[in-house]
Amino acid sequence: MIFETAHTGPVLVIAPHPDDEVLGVGGTIARLTEKGREVHVCIATRGRAERFGRDQVETVKAEAAAAHDILGIHQTHWLDHAAAELDTEPHGALNRSLADLVGRIGAQVLFLPHPGDIHLDHQLVFLSAMVASRPAQQEYPEAIYVYETLSETNWNAPYLTPPFTPNTFVDIGDTLQTKLDAFAAFASQVRASPAERSIDALRALATLRGATVHRKAAEGFVAVRQCY
Amino acid sequence: MIFETAHTGPVLVIAPHPDDEVLGVGGTIARLTEKGREVHVCIATRGRAERFGRDQVETVKAEAAAAHDILGIHQTHWLDHAAAELDTEPHGALNRSLADLVGRIGAQVLFLPHPGDIHLDHQLVFLSAMVASRPAQQEYPEAIYVYETLSETNWNAPYLTPPFTPNTFVDIGDTLQTKLDAFAAFASQVRASPAERSIDALRALATLRGATVHRKAAEGFVAVRQCY
Amino acid sequence: MIFETAHTGPVLVIAPHPDDEVLGVGGTIARLTEKGREVHVCIATRGRAERFGRDQVETVKAEAAAAHDILGIHQTHWLDHAAAELDTEPHGALNRSLADLVGRIGAQVLFLPHPGDIHLDHQLVFLSAMVASRPAQQEYPEAIYVYETLSETNWNAPYLTPPFTPNTFVDIGDTLQTKLDAFAAFASQVRASPAERSIDALRALATLRGATVHRKAAEGFVAVRQCY
Amino acid sequence: MIFETAHTGPVLVIAPHPDDEVLGVGGTIARLTEKGREVHVCIATRGRAERFGRDQVETVKAEAAAAHDILGIHQTHWLDHAAAELDTEPHGALNRSLADLVGRIGAQVLFLPHPGDIHLDHQLVFLSAMVASRPAQQEYPEAIYVYETLSETNWNAPYLTPPFTPNTFVDIGDTLQTKLDAFAAFASQVRASPAERSIDALRALATLRGATVHRKAAEGFVAVRQCY
Amino acid sequence: MIFETAHTGPVLVIAPHPDDEVLGVGGTIARLTEKGREVHVCIATRGRAERFGRDQVETVKAEAAAAHDILGIHQTHWLDHAAAELDTEPHGALNRSLADLVGRIGAQVLFLPHPGDIHLDHQLVFLSAMVASRPAQQEYPEAIYVYETLSETNWNAPYLTPPFTPNTFVDIGDTLQTKLDAFAAFASQVRASPAERSIDALRALATLRGATVHRKAAEGFVAVRQCY
Amino acid sequence: MIFETAHTGPVLVIAPHPDDEVLGVGGTIARLTEKGREVHVCIATRGRAERFGRDQVETVKAEAAAAHDILGIHQTHWLDHAAAELDTEPHGALNRSLADLVGRIGAQVLFLPHPGDIHLDHQLVFLSAMVASRPAQQEYPEAIYVYETLSETNWNAPYLTPPFTPNTFVDIGDTLQTKLDAFAAFASQVRASPAERSIDALRALATLRGATVHRKAAEGFVAVRQCY
Repeated sequence: MIFETAHTGPVLVIAPHPDDEVLGVGGTIARLTEKGREVHVCIATRGRAERFGRDQVETVKAEAAAAHDILGIHQTHWLDHAAAELDTEPHGALNRSLADLVGRIGAQVLFLPHPGDIHLDHQLVFLSAMVASRPAQQEYPEAIYVYETLSETNWNAPYLTPPFTPNTFVDIGDTLQTKLDAFAAFASQVRASPAERSIDALRALATLRGATVHRKAAEGFVAVRQCY
Repeated sequence: MIFETAHTGPVLVIAPHPDDEVLGVGGTIARLTEKGREVHVCIATRGRAERFGRDQVETVKAEAAAAHDILGIHQTHWLDHAAAELDTEPHGALNRSLADLVGRIGAQVLFLPHPGDIHLDHQLVFLSAMVASRPAQQEYPEAIYVYETLSETNWNAPYLTPPFTPNTFVDIGDTLQTKLDAFAAFASQVRASPAERSIDALRALATLRGATVHRKAAEGFVAVRQCY
Repeated sequence: MIFETAHTGPVLVIAPHPDDEVLGVGGTIARLTEKGREVHVCIATRGRAERFGRDQVETVKAEAAAAHDILGIHQTHWLDHAAAELDTEPHGALNRSLADLVGRIGAQVLFLPHPGDIHLDHQLVFLSAMVASRPAQQEYPEAIYVYETLSETNWNAPYLTPPFTPNTFVDIGDTLQTKLDAFAAFASQVRASPAERSIDALRALATLRGATVHRKAAEGFVAVRQCY
Repeated sequence: MIFETAHTGPVLVIAPHPDDEVLGVGGTIARLTEKGREVHVCIATRGRAERFGRDQVETVKAEAAAAHDILGIHQTHWLDHAAAELDTEPHGALNRSLADLVGRIGAQVLFLPHPGDIHLDHQLVFLSAMVASRPAQQEYPEAIYVYETLSETNWNAPYLTPPFTPNTFVDIGDTLQTKLDAFAAFASQVRASPAERSIDALRALATLRGATVHRKAAEGFVAVRQCY
Repeated sequence: MIFETAHTGPVLVIAPHPDDEVLGVGGTIARLTEKGREVHVCIATRGRAERFGRDQVETVKAEAAAAHDILGIHQTHWLDHAAAELDTEPHGALNRSLADLVGRIGAQVLFLPHPGDIHLDHQLVFLSAMVASRPAQQEYPEAIYVYETLSETNWNAPYLTPPFTPNTFVDIGDTLQTKLDAFAAFASQVRASPAERSIDALRALATLRGATVHRKAAEGFVAVRQCY
Repeated sequence: MIFETAHTGPVLVIAPHPDDEVLGVGGTIARLTEKGREVHVCIATRGRAERFGRDQVETVKAEAAAAHDILGIHQTHWLDHAAAELDTEPHGALNRSLADLVGRIGAQVLFLPHPGDIHLDHQLVFLSAMVASRPAQQEYPEAIYVYETLSETNWNAPYLTPPFTPNTFVDIGDTLQTKLDAFAAFASQVRASPAERSIDALRALATLRGATVHRKAAEGFVAVRQCY
């Protein structure tokens, strides 16, 4: 924004499940790390072996490591809550682990999943992250943005659940390829066109968000709180 | 919908200015006319010569003729209200000319610009078309959809003006190229990438709307009224 | 809609509790089954004997059978989740049983309770049904509508919870009486006027929804997703 | 509300056109006047003879007189702005004539048309009445409610224009018949069923609004401002 | 409102945690009790000793007693659900204890926390209180208002969670000091400026809400349901 | 935001009428100009002598000059459209004069009145400024914020007109006094407490917006578009 010295501290991208951080923020992350910014990723859940199979759980973890390496992530934090079962844990448990992480790394900028996403895990992670960031004292995350996730954000109920209409655009013309490479590293998660989780859909979204602000490619976000 | 014999009568696409009908509904129009449906286009305004230049006005009209020919339009109706000056005419005048047209062709399905578009002409055309379609008697347009227009719909104020979140998708995998050809016929209106009025942006939008419903390409609409 | 061969496959009406399907969709169901369409009803929950009494549980089940017979339902599916206690089950459990049902009968058209209903069961059934219908592959329910339930939809908080404003109307002038008969079959659920669960209120709602589109009686729905 | 001595001063019902005040507030007016309250009606516009015909204009005026007599209206104020042409007058003109009226009669309670009504006159009257009631000094209308108008409120665009979801209900079980009589006095405006402007529709709406709060009949309003 | 004999029965203020009732409704309570009205406070939760420490739990309870004494509360009802863990209890349990209380004291006017507050306890208490107040029979709370809570209401996500925009204002010019005294009685909860839970912030909010309606101080509410 | 070199160009605050820029942005302007930023103010309208009196018009202009001097404004631009009569001018005229100004000074950051303000001039200025800032080419205002105006923003219709819920806060702890001094310079516009246009109300608003983000004073804005 207008005060150029603001929000230069650590950035934290919170993903309910591995690859959400790439789908929503990959190009922006790459641009930030290229400038030397410290970017953390928090994966809120991990697939339970009994549900997803031990192999898949390990595979996804390795894919995330590769993707985060491509993006230049400073550190990845696995919270190990139960994937697709967040609603069975006490809300307070997620609040506490996120608050602990936010405080430990001194996160100044947050990127969160959208509360209107169709996946209940996304909704719960959003709310807990907001609780973890309450401005109840002098220090707290001063900038909070919500990102969109293909295969989640567009699949909820139009006009009956909160809409995603971006008011913040980051030019990723120079880092789109890095984003696509990072997503490709999640080989077990990429789907063939015309699925929403395809490279084609991801590229189309970047082109559209870019065109809206006359750029070759962009990521769109909703600003939730910015303090200067 | 579920009653297969419904809404098989004349279709009317109302465009505030020439090319809106192609940007928003081009692929759907092509699919309808291929099936032999009677599709009309109404261009609500015409650029005044003193403002836009006589040449440009004539150029756009010829381009529209070419584009509509590509799409198989049954008839194009030019209402000749003043482009970009609709707010200076009495609201009732536009109401009357649209009501007259709707009645004359017995339109059963309408496609309208979005009331949240940034262009005041779009907002006024939407409202007047709704007035012209009131179910005050036995016969009226039984299906009304709102389309999105690149360079209008995405440029208004997120969360402060009505959002466009499509709840109706038409597969245009087989007619996307026809749509792009029709848009290309508006040579004076097409812009180079990364403008929103570019072929690239139009293709990206179609790919994204398609991916949302697992199709190669689609157009998205908001259903405003459907009667069965 | 405009493509007459669309959405002619199996119809599935999902009711959180028995009689919701009649209150919200009874007249439309009757019209569909009269045309020979295959209509399924899913009752997501069953009253636990210890809470509602064994007799009442059996009574309601018999009433549902009678009502569904009147409406010409193809098959009734009892999922047997715990009524009024859905929030105590894992969200994933309901997701799975609904996804299993949707897939097994190949449901193409869904009718769901409204996410703004005051009953938490309604909200949870809506979300799980949306999850069960994600367009993540070629086949999925192509048409999804939300219905209104007297004694639920009007009792939540105006402007603070999602509103029900119908954009889809089905003429039930010829089937209103069948709907009222089916509701009357739920003798244990019908209340005397002026309760919302009364025959008088149901008739008034049908008259009002009809008048809005100049028909003697109608049911109103919100279109959530339609793919053509 | 909770402070029983509040809002006992003059009541002003502002109608864009004659009969709106009956459709929206007729039963409440009757209940108020029966208790001896001073109720004024303001008709913001009058049909121009050249547009509506001198006879019709006179007819409607006589009908209004009869209807207001039935309802026990204290005084009817005709502002004589141009019906269906309010948008062609300066906004300030309507502001001034409404502010003048509000001040002259010392209106303490206002009933206004809904800003989401499809008729632009309704939208403009609402905004001007709000301007006329700004709390810029010690005295101003302390209670403002919005009413619904059959054939206007339900005909705008769901989810794209402001919804009418009543949060205030007035029991009109004892005055519904008076309301219907007053509406019948507008013989030139009543339509046969199934039109929205029919006695049947009016009665259905009253029954539905009543059932929502377990009363035989009610009128629903949206509270816009209440000061105690 | 306009019917002066309405809503003169018992008033019930439901607070998720002790002091919410003072932050949101303190000045209005004082004004009501001064007039001899019977005002009850329900504290929905109590801090568990193992989580908050036995001393703090006892301290807060004593503070509440002092505060309620200052406000002239008729009776305080401790429901003893688990603070900050409401989501781990069955929704039905809270429904039942609130419904029981509402019925037992014959509450006619309710003040509830806002469903858009960031604290999940607030959201759950709101929903359960609405369920407990359903107009399913002749008697039920006829007036329901939502209050705002500093340190909760302003900390959720703008435009993505339900907004608090007051439509009901109560002049607390004469009772603001009593409210501040009552809040000061919660010595363990008051924070120093510039925290939202500070006396300064509370005073600023009262001044702002007052200025909006040209009064020295006011509390703002959202009317959710009013029946006359 | 996160890219510290962004949005360091000229700032333009657009006020429908003189003093709106101080009420909404005064503290932020002072903070910006103290850092040497180039801040312009555009006053969209001027009171017509025949309506407001020549003296008052001159007085306000002199007051604005004094206020802008206090704030360190780089340049004040008077567009001289007709105050309180903007709706009587063609929409295109205001579009053009704003687009011309935005282009001439190369404005990179805009502050606009809120589209939900009760004054139609505010709504029209907002829309025209958005049109003037369309990203139809490489250069355009990359950051757009909406400010709140006491005596306008809080006086429209809750839940029926667009809400102002700030997502962007600027700490004005060090410039609040400058803001109040600048407002005091508008001697003809300041009102005594408890009016919304009073120094007390302005101070209360700053305290409340500050407390929300744990600062002594702040101004709140809604981010409408930010490009990085």
